[in-house]
Amino acid sequence: MEEQIIGWIYEAAEKVKAGLGEALKVDQKSGRTDLVTNVDKAVQEFIVNKINVFDPDAKILGEENGQDQTRIDKGRVFVIDPIDGTLNFVMQQENFCIMIAVYEEGIGQLGFIYDVMRDELLWGGPRVGKVFYNREELAIPENKYLNQGLMGMNAGLYREDRYHAQAIAKESMGIRVLGCAGLDFIAILKGTQIGYMSLLSPWDYAAGTIMMKQLGMTFQGAHGQPLAFNTREFFIGGTCATMAQIQAFDQ
Amino acid sequence: MEEQIIGWIYEAAEKVKAGLGEALKVDQKSGRTDLVTNVDKAVQEFIVNKINVFDPDAKILGEENGQDQTRIDKGRVFVIDPIDGTLNFVMQQENFCIMIAVYEEGIGQLGFIYDVMRDELLWGGPRVGKVFYNREELAIPENKYLNQGLMGMNAGLYREDRYHAQAIAKESMGIRVLGCAGLDFIAILKGTQIGYMSLLSPWDYAAGTIMMKQLGMTFQGAHGQPLAFNTREFFIGGTCATMAQIQAFDQ
Repeated sequence: MEEQIIGWIYEAAEKVKAGLGEALKVDQKSGRTDLVTNVDKAVQEFIVNKINVFDPDAKILGEENGQDQTRIDKGRVFVIDPIDGTLNFVMQQENFCIMIAVYEEGIGQLGFIYDVMRDELLWGGPRVGKVFYNREELAIPENKYLNQGLMGMNAGLYREDRYHAQAIAKESMGIRVLGCAGLDFIAILKGTQIGYMSLLSPWDYAAGTIMMKQLGMTFQGAHGQPLAFNTREFFIGGTCATMAQIQAFDQ
Repeated sequence: MEEQIIGWIYEAAEKVKAGLGEALKVDQKSGRTDLVTNVDKAVQEFIVNKINVFDPDAKILGEENGQDQTRIDKGRVFVIDPIDGTLNFVMQQENFCIMIAVYEEGIGQLGFIYDVMRDELLWGGPRVGKVFYNREELAIPENKYLNQGLMGMNAGLYREDRYHAQAIAKESMGIRVLGCAGLDFIAILKGTQIGYMSLLSPWDYAAGTIMMKQLGMTFQGAHGQPLAFNTREFFIGGTCATMAQIQAFDQ
Protein backbone atom coordinates (compact mmCIF):
# COMPACT_ATOMS: atom_id res chain seq x y z
CA MET A 1 0.00 0.00 0.00
CA GLU A 2 2.78 2.44 0.90
CA GLU A 3 4.27 2.40 -2.60
CA GLN A 4 0.91 3.26 -4.15
CA ILE A 5 0.43 6.17 -1.77
CA ILE A 6 3.93 7.49 -2.47
CA GLY A 7 3.10 7.34 -6.17
CA TRP A 8 -0.12 9.33 -5.63
CA ILE A 9 1.76 11.97 -3.63
CA TYR A 10 4.44 12.49 -6.27
CA GLU A 11 1.79 12.67 -8.97
CA ALA A 12 -0.25 15.13 -6.91
CA ALA A 13 2.88 17.23 -6.34
CA GLU A 14 3.36 17.58 -10.09
CA LYS A 15 -0.20 18.92 -10.32
CA VAL A 16 0.52 21.36 -7.51
CA LYS A 17 3.68 22.63 -9.17
CA ALA A 18 1.83 23.00 -12.48
CA GLY A 19 -0.90 24.92 -10.61
CA LEU A 20 1.68 27.40 -9.28
CA GLY A 21 2.33 28.52 -12.85
CA GLU A 22 -1.31 29.46 -13.39
CA ALA A 23 -3.66 31.98 -11.78
CA LEU A 24 -4.91 30.51 -8.49
CA LYS A 25 -8.58 30.75 -7.62
CA VAL A 26 -8.49 31.65 -3.92
CA ASP A 27 -11.55 31.59 -1.64
CA GLN A 28 -11.90 32.41 2.04
CA LYS A 29 -13.25 29.82 4.47
CA SER A 30 -13.66 30.93 8.11
CA GLY A 31 -11.93 34.30 7.57
CA ARG A 32 -9.58 36.35 5.42
CA THR A 33 -6.47 34.34 6.40
CA ASP A 34 -8.15 30.90 6.16
CA LEU A 35 -7.88 30.18 2.46
CA VAL A 36 -8.68 27.41 0.03
CA THR A 37 -7.66 27.32 -3.62
CA ASN A 38 -8.73 25.41 -6.70
CA VAL A 39 -5.49 23.44 -6.25
CA ASP A 40 -6.40 22.24 -2.72
CA LYS A 41 -9.73 20.98 -4.03
CA ALA A 42 -8.30 19.38 -7.17
CA VAL A 43 -5.53 17.60 -5.25
CA GLN A 44 -7.98 16.19 -2.71
CA GLU A 45 -10.24 15.01 -5.53
CA PHE A 46 -7.27 13.42 -7.31
CA ILE A 47 -6.21 11.52 -4.17
CA VAL A 48 -9.79 10.52 -3.33
CA ASN A 49 -10.18 9.04 -6.82
CA LYS A 50 -6.97 7.06 -6.38
CA ILE A 51 -8.21 5.74 -3.02
CA ASN A 52 -11.61 4.79 -4.44
CA VAL A 53 -9.94 2.65 -7.10
CA PHE A 54 -7.41 1.18 -4.65
CA ASP A 55 -9.87 0.35 -1.85
CA PRO A 56 -13.55 1.11 -2.58
CA ASP A 57 -14.49 0.24 1.02
CA ALA A 58 -12.15 2.74 2.64
CA LYS A 59 -13.55 5.92 4.18
CA ILE A 60 -12.04 9.35 3.76
CA LEU A 61 -11.50 12.22 6.19
CA GLY A 62 -10.24 15.27 4.36
CA GLU A 63 -9.94 19.00 4.83
CA GLU A 64 -11.79 19.98 1.65
CA ASN A 65 -14.89 19.02 -0.36
CA GLY A 66 -17.16 18.42 2.65
CA GLN A 67 -15.31 15.28 3.77
CA ASP A 68 -14.32 16.70 7.16
CA GLN A 69 -16.77 14.81 9.42
CA THR A 70 -15.66 11.18 8.95
CA ARG A 71 -14.70 9.33 12.16
CA ILE A 72 -11.46 7.34 12.15
CA ASP A 73 -12.39 4.55 14.58
CA LYS A 74 -14.00 1.97 12.28
CA GLY A 75 -12.54 0.22 9.22
CA ARG A 76 -9.82 1.73 7.07
CA VAL A 77 -9.80 5.53 6.90
CA PHE A 78 -7.55 7.68 4.76
CA VAL A 79 -6.95 11.13 6.25
CA ILE A 80 -5.98 13.73 3.65
CA ASP A 81 -4.69 17.27 3.80
CA PRO A 82 -4.20 18.08 0.12
CA ILE A 83 -2.28 21.30 0.85
CA ASP A 84 -1.26 21.92 4.43
CA GLY A 85 -0.18 25.55 4.74
CA THR A 86 -2.47 26.99 2.07
CA LEU A 87 -1.63 30.55 3.12
CA ASN A 88 2.08 29.86 2.51
CA PHE A 89 1.16 28.17 -0.78
CA VAL A 90 -0.70 31.30 -1.93
CA MET A 91 1.74 33.88 -0.52
CA GLN A 92 5.06 32.11 -0.93
CA GLN A 93 4.66 29.30 -3.44
CA GLU A 94 6.70 27.23 -0.98
CA ASN A 95 6.58 26.04 2.64
CA PHE A 96 3.52 23.82 2.22
CA CYS A 97 2.99 20.04 2.38
CA ILE A 98 0.78 17.25 1.08
CA MET A 99 -0.23 14.91 3.94
CA ILE A 100 -1.91 11.50 3.95
CA ALA A 101 -2.47 9.10 6.85
CA VAL A 102 -3.99 5.62 7.02
CA TYR A 103 -5.92 4.52 10.10
CA GLU A 104 -7.31 1.01 10.62
CA GLU A 105 -9.85 0.49 13.40
CA GLY A 106 -8.66 3.77 14.91
CA ILE A 107 -4.96 2.83 14.90
CA GLY A 108 -2.55 4.87 12.76
CA GLN A 109 -0.69 2.54 10.39
CA LEU A 110 1.03 4.87 7.91
CA GLY A 111 1.76 8.59 7.71
CA PHE A 112 3.13 10.64 4.80
CA ILE A 113 4.21 14.29 4.81
CA TYR A 114 5.65 15.72 1.61
CA ASP A 115 7.30 19.16 1.48
CA VAL A 116 6.65 19.61 -2.23
CA MET A 117 9.08 22.40 -3.12
CA ARG A 118 11.99 20.98 -1.08
CA ASP A 119 11.27 17.41 -2.24
CA GLU A 120 11.35 16.04 1.32
CA LEU A 121 9.07 13.04 1.93
CA LEU A 122 8.76 11.74 5.48
CA TRP A 123 6.77 8.53 5.69
CA GLY A 124 6.34 5.42 7.78
CA GLY A 125 4.54 3.91 10.75
CA PRO A 126 3.68 0.53 12.29
CA ARG A 127 2.86 -1.05 8.94
CA VAL A 128 6.48 -0.70 7.80
CA GLY A 129 8.02 -0.54 11.28
CA LYS A 130 10.16 2.46 10.42
CA VAL A 131 10.13 6.09 9.33
CA PHE A 132 11.87 7.12 6.14
CA TYR A 133 13.29 10.42 4.84
CA ASN A 134 12.75 9.91 1.12
CA ARG A 135 14.25 6.40 0.72
CA GLU A 136 16.57 6.52 3.72
CA GLU A 137 15.58 5.16 7.14
CA LEU A 138 15.36 7.94 9.68
CA ALA A 139 17.26 7.57 12.95
CA ILE A 140 15.39 8.05 16.22
CA PRO A 141 16.07 11.68 17.22
CA GLU A 142 17.96 12.39 20.41
CA ASN A 143 15.60 12.63 23.40
CA LYS A 144 16.31 16.30 24.08
CA TYR A 145 14.99 18.37 26.96
CA LEU A 146 13.01 21.56 26.40
CA ASN A 147 16.04 23.75 27.07
CA GLN A 148 18.03 21.96 24.37
CA GLY A 149 15.98 22.77 21.30
CA LEU A 150 13.63 24.91 19.26
CA MET A 151 9.87 24.77 19.73
CA GLY A 152 7.39 25.21 16.87
CA MET A 153 4.48 27.38 17.91
CA ASN A 154 1.24 28.92 16.73
CA ALA A 155 1.49 32.73 16.84
CA GLY A 156 -1.90 33.25 18.49
CA LEU A 157 -1.26 30.77 21.32
CA TYR A 158 2.06 32.47 21.94
CA ARG A 159 0.66 36.01 21.91
CA GLU A 160 -2.20 35.11 24.26
CA ASP A 161 0.03 32.90 26.44
CA ARG A 162 -2.41 30.00 26.31
CA TYR A 163 -1.41 26.57 27.66
CA HIS A 164 1.77 28.03 29.23
CA ALA A 165 3.05 28.95 25.76
CA GLN A 166 5.31 31.77 26.93
CA ALA A 167 6.81 29.77 29.80
CA ILE A 168 7.46 26.87 27.43
CA ALA A 169 9.01 29.23 24.88
CA LYS A 170 11.22 30.86 27.52
CA GLU A 171 12.53 27.51 28.75
CA SER A 172 13.25 26.35 25.18
CA MET A 173 16.06 27.65 22.94
CA GLY A 174 13.50 29.72 21.05
CA ILE A 175 10.35 29.44 18.99
CA ARG A 176 9.71 29.20 15.29
CA VAL A 177 6.46 30.11 13.55
CA LEU A 178 6.25 28.40 10.16
CA GLY A 179 2.54 28.54 9.34
CA CYS A 180 2.41 24.89 8.24
CA ALA A 181 1.93 21.98 10.67
CA GLY A 182 3.59 19.56 8.24
CA LEU A 183 6.84 21.53 8.37
CA ASP A 184 6.82 21.43 12.17
CA PHE A 185 6.25 17.66 12.15
CA ILE A 186 9.06 17.23 9.62
CA ALA A 187 11.38 19.22 11.90
CA ILE A 188 10.43 17.11 14.93
CA LEU A 189 10.94 13.85 13.01
CA LYS A 190 14.33 15.01 11.72
CA GLY A 191 15.27 16.11 15.25
CA THR A 192 15.68 19.79 14.35
CA GLN A 193 12.85 20.88 16.69
CA ILE A 194 12.07 19.37 20.09
CA GLY A 195 8.32 19.99 19.89
CA TYR A 196 5.36 21.85 18.48
CA MET A 197 2.17 23.36 19.92
CA SER A 198 -0.75 24.70 17.94
CA LEU A 199 -4.49 24.49 17.30
CA LEU A 200 -4.93 21.70 14.78
CA SER A 201 -7.57 19.71 12.94
CA PRO A 202 -7.30 15.91 12.52
CA TRP A 203 -5.85 16.15 8.99
CA ASP A 204 -3.14 18.46 10.38
CA TYR A 205 -1.85 15.93 12.91
CA ALA A 206 -3.01 12.53 11.57
CA ALA A 207 0.17 11.71 9.61
CA GLY A 208 2.70 13.42 11.86
CA THR A 209 1.58 11.72 15.07
CA ILE A 210 1.82 8.23 13.51
CA MET A 211 5.46 8.87 12.67
CA MET A 212 6.22 10.58 16.00
CA LYS A 213 4.92 7.53 17.84
CA GLN A 214 6.99 5.25 15.60
CA LEU A 215 10.09 7.22 16.63
CA GLY A 216 9.23 7.09 20.35
CA MET A 217 7.89 10.61 20.75
CA THR A 218 4.66 11.67 22.45
CA PHE A 219 1.76 14.11 21.99
CA GLN A 220 -1.51 15.04 23.64
CA GLY A 221 -4.46 17.41 23.60
CA ALA A 222 -5.29 20.05 26.19
CA HIS A 223 -4.34 19.12 29.78
CA GLY A 224 -3.08 15.69 28.78
CA GLN A 225 -6.28 14.48 27.11
CA PRO A 226 -5.95 12.25 24.04
CA LEU A 227 -6.55 13.97 20.70
CA ALA A 228 -10.25 13.82 19.75
CA PHE A 229 -9.84 13.52 15.95
CA ASN A 230 -13.17 15.26 15.37
CA THR A 231 -12.53 18.99 15.74
CA ARG A 232 -9.91 21.71 15.73
CA GLU A 233 -8.22 21.35 19.09
CA PHE A 234 -5.11 22.14 21.09
CA PHE A 235 -2.17 19.91 20.15
CA ILE A 236 1.22 19.59 21.78
CA GLY A 237 3.89 17.03 21.02
CA GLY A 238 7.61 16.48 21.14
CA THR A 239 10.39 14.36 22.53
CA CYS A 240 9.57 12.40 25.70
CA ALA A 241 11.97 14.49 27.79
CA THR A 242 10.44 17.74 26.53
CA MET A 243 6.88 16.52 26.99
CA ALA A 244 7.56 15.42 30.58
CA GLN A 245 8.78 18.94 31.34
CA ILE A 246 5.82 20.53 29.58
CA GLN A 247 3.36 18.35 31.52
CA ALA A 248 4.89 19.64 34.74
CA PHE A 249 3.83 23.21 33.82
CA ASP A 250 0.22 22.00 34.07
CA GLN A 251 0.49 20.69 37.64
CA MET B 1 34.39 42.65 -7.57
CA GLU B 2 31.02 40.85 -7.43
CA GLU B 3 32.36 37.70 -9.09
CA GLN B 4 35.19 37.44 -6.57
CA ILE B 5 32.78 37.81 -3.67
CA ILE B 6 30.44 35.15 -5.10
CA GLY B 7 33.44 32.86 -5.38
CA TRP B 8 34.37 33.45 -1.72
CA ILE B 9 30.80 32.73 -0.63
CA TYR B 10 30.57 29.43 -2.49
CA GLU B 11 33.98 28.40 -1.16
CA ALA B 12 32.96 29.39 2.38
CA ALA B 13 29.73 27.41 2.00
CA GLU B 14 31.73 24.27 1.22
CA LYS B 15 33.64 24.80 4.48
CA VAL B 16 30.36 25.25 6.36
CA LYS B 17 28.90 22.05 4.93
CA ALA B 18 32.07 20.17 5.76
CA GLY B 19 31.86 21.60 9.30
CA LEU B 20 28.34 20.17 9.70
CA GLY B 21 29.78 16.69 9.43
CA GLU B 22 32.11 17.23 12.38
CA ALA B 23 31.57 17.98 16.07
CA LEU B 24 30.83 21.71 16.41
CA LYS B 25 32.53 23.70 19.13
CA VAL B 26 29.71 25.90 20.45
CA ASP B 27 30.21 28.86 22.82
CA GLN B 28 27.72 31.26 24.36
CA LYS B 29 28.05 35.00 23.80
CA SER B 30 25.49 37.24 25.58
CA GLY B 31 23.38 34.30 26.82
CA ARG B 32 22.44 30.67 26.41
CA THR B 33 20.61 31.23 23.09
CA ASP B 34 23.23 33.60 21.61
CA LEU B 35 25.76 31.17 20.19
CA VAL B 36 28.97 31.20 18.20
CA THR B 37 30.71 28.15 16.79
CA ASN B 38 34.16 27.36 15.49
CA VAL B 39 32.59 27.46 12.02
CA ASP B 40 31.36 31.07 12.39
CA LYS B 41 34.86 32.13 13.39
CA ALA B 42 36.61 30.10 10.68
CA VAL B 43 34.31 31.39 7.94
CA GLN B 44 34.79 35.01 8.98
CA GLU B 45 38.56 34.50 9.05
CA PHE B 46 38.44 32.87 5.62
CA ILE B 47 36.49 35.78 4.12
CA VAL B 48 38.66 38.37 5.86
CA ASN B 49 41.76 36.78 4.37
CA LYS B 50 40.20 36.91 0.91
CA ILE B 51 39.34 40.60 1.39
CA ASN B 52 42.85 41.43 2.63
CA VAL B 53 44.35 39.98 -0.54
CA PHE B 54 41.72 41.55 -2.81
CA ASP B 55 41.83 45.06 -1.27
CA PRO B 56 44.36 45.59 1.53
CA ASP B 57 42.97 49.09 2.19
CA ALA B 58 39.41 47.97 2.81
CA LYS B 59 38.05 47.95 6.35
CA ILE B 60 35.98 45.15 7.82
CA LEU B 61 32.88 45.16 10.05
CA GLY B 62 32.05 41.63 11.12
CA GLU B 63 30.04 39.82 13.77
CA GLU B 64 32.90 37.69 15.06
CA ASN B 65 36.59 37.96 15.98
CA GLY B 66 36.33 41.44 17.60
CA GLN B 67 35.69 43.24 14.31
CA ASP B 68 32.27 44.56 15.36
CA GLN B 69 33.14 48.24 15.98
CA THR B 70 34.18 49.44 12.51
CA ARG B 71 32.22 52.42 11.13
CA ILE B 72 30.94 52.19 7.56
CA ASP B 73 31.07 55.86 6.58
CA LYS B 74 34.64 56.24 5.28
CA GLY B 75 36.39 54.36 2.47
CA ARG B 76 35.42 50.85 1.41
CA VAL B 77 34.01 48.65 4.16
CA PHE B 78 33.08 44.98 3.86
CA VAL B 79 30.35 43.96 6.31
CA ILE B 80 30.36 40.24 7.10
CA ASP B 81 28.02 37.89 8.88
CA PRO B 82 29.77 34.54 8.45
CA ILE B 83 26.76 32.56 9.71
CA ASP B 84 23.52 34.44 10.19
CA GLY B 85 21.16 32.25 12.22
CA THR B 86 23.80 30.43 14.26
CA LEU B 87 21.14 28.93 16.54
CA ASN B 88 19.42 27.36 13.51
CA PHE B 89 22.83 26.24 12.24
CA VAL B 90 23.52 24.42 15.52
CA MET B 91 19.99 23.07 16.10
CA GLN B 92 18.83 22.39 12.57
CA GLN B 93 21.84 22.24 10.28
CA GLU B 94 19.78 24.37 7.89
CA ASN B 95 17.96 27.73 7.79
CA PHE B 96 21.12 29.87 8.06
CA CYS B 97 22.89 32.26 5.67
CA ILE B 98 26.26 33.71 4.79
CA MET B 99 25.98 37.49 4.28
CA ILE B 100 28.42 40.03 2.86
CA ALA B 101 27.87 43.72 2.01
CA VAL B 102 30.15 46.34 0.46
CA TYR B 103 29.83 49.98 1.49
CA GLU B 104 31.79 52.85 -0.09
CA GLU B 105 31.81 56.21 1.72
CA GLY B 106 28.76 55.03 3.63
CA ILE B 107 26.76 54.04 0.54
CA GLY B 108 25.78 50.41 0.07
CA GLN B 109 27.05 49.16 -3.29
CA LEU B 110 26.62 45.39 -3.17
CA GLY B 111 24.78 42.93 -0.96
CA PHE B 112 24.98 39.11 -0.87
CA ILE B 113 22.80 36.69 1.12
CA TYR B 114 23.38 32.98 0.62
CA ASP B 115 21.03 30.33 2.04
CA VAL B 116 23.67 27.64 2.09
CA MET B 117 21.55 24.48 2.39
CA ARG B 118 18.92 25.59 -0.17
CA ASP B 119 21.58 26.97 -2.55
CA GLU B 120 19.76 30.30 -2.92
CA LEU B 121 22.05 33.29 -3.52
CA LEU B 122 20.46 36.74 -3.59
CA TRP B 123 22.89 39.45 -4.63
CA GLY B 124 23.07 42.86 -6.24
CA GLY B 125 22.89 46.58 -5.60
CA PRO B 126 23.79 49.91 -7.24
CA ARG B 127 27.15 48.64 -8.53
CA VAL B 128 25.41 46.17 -10.83
CA GLY B 129 22.08 48.02 -11.03
CA LYS B 130 20.06 44.88 -10.37
CA VAL B 131 19.34 42.11 -7.90
CA PHE B 132 19.89 38.51 -8.88
CA TYR B 133 18.49 35.19 -7.63
CA ASN B 134 21.45 32.94 -8.35
CA ARG B 135 22.15 33.97 -11.99
CA GLU B 136 18.66 35.17 -12.84
CA GLU B 137 17.62 38.83 -12.55
CA LEU B 138 14.98 39.26 -9.87
CA ALA B 139 11.76 41.13 -10.77
CA ILE B 140 10.67 44.01 -8.55
CA PRO B 141 8.13 42.49 -6.14
CA GLU B 142 4.55 43.70 -6.24
CA ASN B 143 4.03 46.72 -3.96
CA LYS B 144 1.67 44.92 -1.58
CA TYR B 145 -0.19 46.44 1.35
CA LEU B 146 0.16 45.09 4.87
CA ASN B 147 -3.11 43.16 4.64
CA GLN B 148 -1.91 41.36 1.51
CA GLY B 149 1.09 39.49 2.86
CA LEU B 150 3.06 37.75 5.58
CA MET B 151 5.25 39.68 8.00
CA GLY B 152 8.53 38.35 9.38
CA MET B 153 8.86 39.07 13.06
CA ASN B 154 11.10 38.66 16.08
CA ALA B 155 9.33 36.57 18.75
CA GLY B 156 10.26 38.88 21.64
CA LEU B 157 8.99 42.05 19.95
CA TYR B 158 5.75 40.23 19.15
CA ARG B 159 5.26 38.84 22.66
CA GLU B 160 5.94 42.21 24.30
CA ASP B 161 3.97 44.12 21.65
CA ARG B 162 6.78 46.59 21.08
CA TYR B 163 6.66 49.06 18.17
CA HIS B 164 2.99 48.13 17.47
CA ALA B 165 4.06 44.58 16.65
CA GLN B 166 0.70 42.98 17.48
CA ALA B 167 -1.34 45.58 15.59
CA ILE B 168 0.96 45.16 12.59
CA ALA B 169 0.65 41.38 12.82
CA LYS B 170 -3.13 41.55 13.09
CA GLU B 171 -3.44 43.76 10.01
CA SER B 172 -1.13 41.46 8.02
CA MET B 173 -2.02 37.99 6.70
CA GLY B 174 0.05 36.48 9.51
CA ILE B 175 3.55 36.39 10.97
CA ARG B 176 6.46 34.06 10.50
CA VAL B 177 9.33 33.59 12.96
CA LEU B 178 12.35 32.11 11.19
CA GLY B 179 15.23 32.92 13.53
CA CYS B 180 17.49 34.14 10.73
CA ALA B 181 17.39 37.71 9.36
CA GLY B 182 18.85 36.58 6.06
CA LEU B 183 15.88 34.30 5.40
CA ASP B 184 13.48 37.16 6.07
CA PHE B 185 15.37 39.43 3.67
CA ILE B 186 15.37 36.68 1.03
CA ALA B 187 11.58 36.33 1.44
CA ILE B 188 11.09 40.10 1.08
CA LEU B 189 13.31 40.26 -2.02
CA LYS B 190 11.47 37.32 -3.61
CA GLY B 191 8.15 38.95 -2.73
CA THR B 192 7.00 36.11 -0.46
CA GLN B 193 6.87 38.37 2.63
CA ILE B 194 5.75 42.00 2.66
CA GLY B 195 8.05 43.02 5.51
CA TYR B 196 10.16 42.17 8.53
CA MET B 197 10.66 43.68 12.00
CA SER B 198 13.31 42.67 14.50
CA LEU B 199 16.21 43.81 16.64
CA LEU B 200 19.26 43.65 14.40
CA SER B 201 22.96 44.45 14.30
CA PRO B 202 24.56 46.11 11.25
CA TRP B 203 25.83 42.79 9.82
CA ASP B 204 22.25 41.45 10.01
CA TYR B 205 20.79 44.18 7.79
CA ALA B 206 23.78 45.52 5.78
CA ALA B 207 23.33 43.25 2.75
CA GLY B 208 19.55 42.96 2.80
CA THR B 209 18.88 46.69 2.89
CA ILE B 210 21.12 47.35 -0.13
CA MET B 211 19.06 44.91 -2.18
CA MET B 212 15.73 46.13 -0.79
CA LYS B 213 16.60 49.68 -1.83
CA GLN B 214 17.62 48.45 -5.27
CA LEU B 215 14.16 46.88 -5.64
CA GLY B 216 12.36 50.04 -4.48
CA MET B 217 11.55 48.93 -0.94
CA THR B 218 12.11 50.91 2.26
CA PHE B 219 13.28 50.41 5.84
CA GLN B 220 13.95 52.42 8.97
CA GLY B 221 14.94 52.28 12.62
CA ALA B 222 12.72 53.09 15.60
CA HIS B 223 10.15 55.84 14.98
CA GLY B 224 11.35 56.47 11.43
CA GLN B 225 14.99 57.21 12.33
CA PRO B 226 17.68 56.04 9.88
CA LEU B 227 19.55 52.89 10.90
CA ALA B 228 22.60 53.75 13.00
CA PHE B 229 24.95 50.97 11.79
CA ASN B 230 26.76 50.92 15.12
CA THR B 231 24.63 48.90 17.52
CA ARG B 232 21.83 46.35 17.82
CA GLU B 233 18.70 48.34 17.10
CA PHE B 234 15.08 48.13 16.04
CA PHE B 235 14.68 47.48 12.32
CA ILE B 236 11.59 47.49 10.19
CA GLY B 237 11.38 47.26 6.43
CA GLY B 238 9.13 46.13 3.61
CA THR B 239 7.27 47.22 0.53
CA CYS B 240 6.52 50.93 0.24
CA ALA B 241 2.78 50.38 0.61
CA THR B 242 3.29 48.29 3.76
CA MET B 243 5.77 50.73 5.26
CA ALA B 244 3.44 53.70 4.70
CA GLN B 245 0.75 51.85 6.65
CA ILE B 246 3.16 50.86 9.40
CA GLN B 247 4.37 54.46 9.76
CA ALA B 248 0.76 55.51 10.33
CA PHE B 249 0.62 53.33 13.46
CA ASP B 250 3.26 55.59 14.96
CA GLN B 251 1.31 58.85 14.52
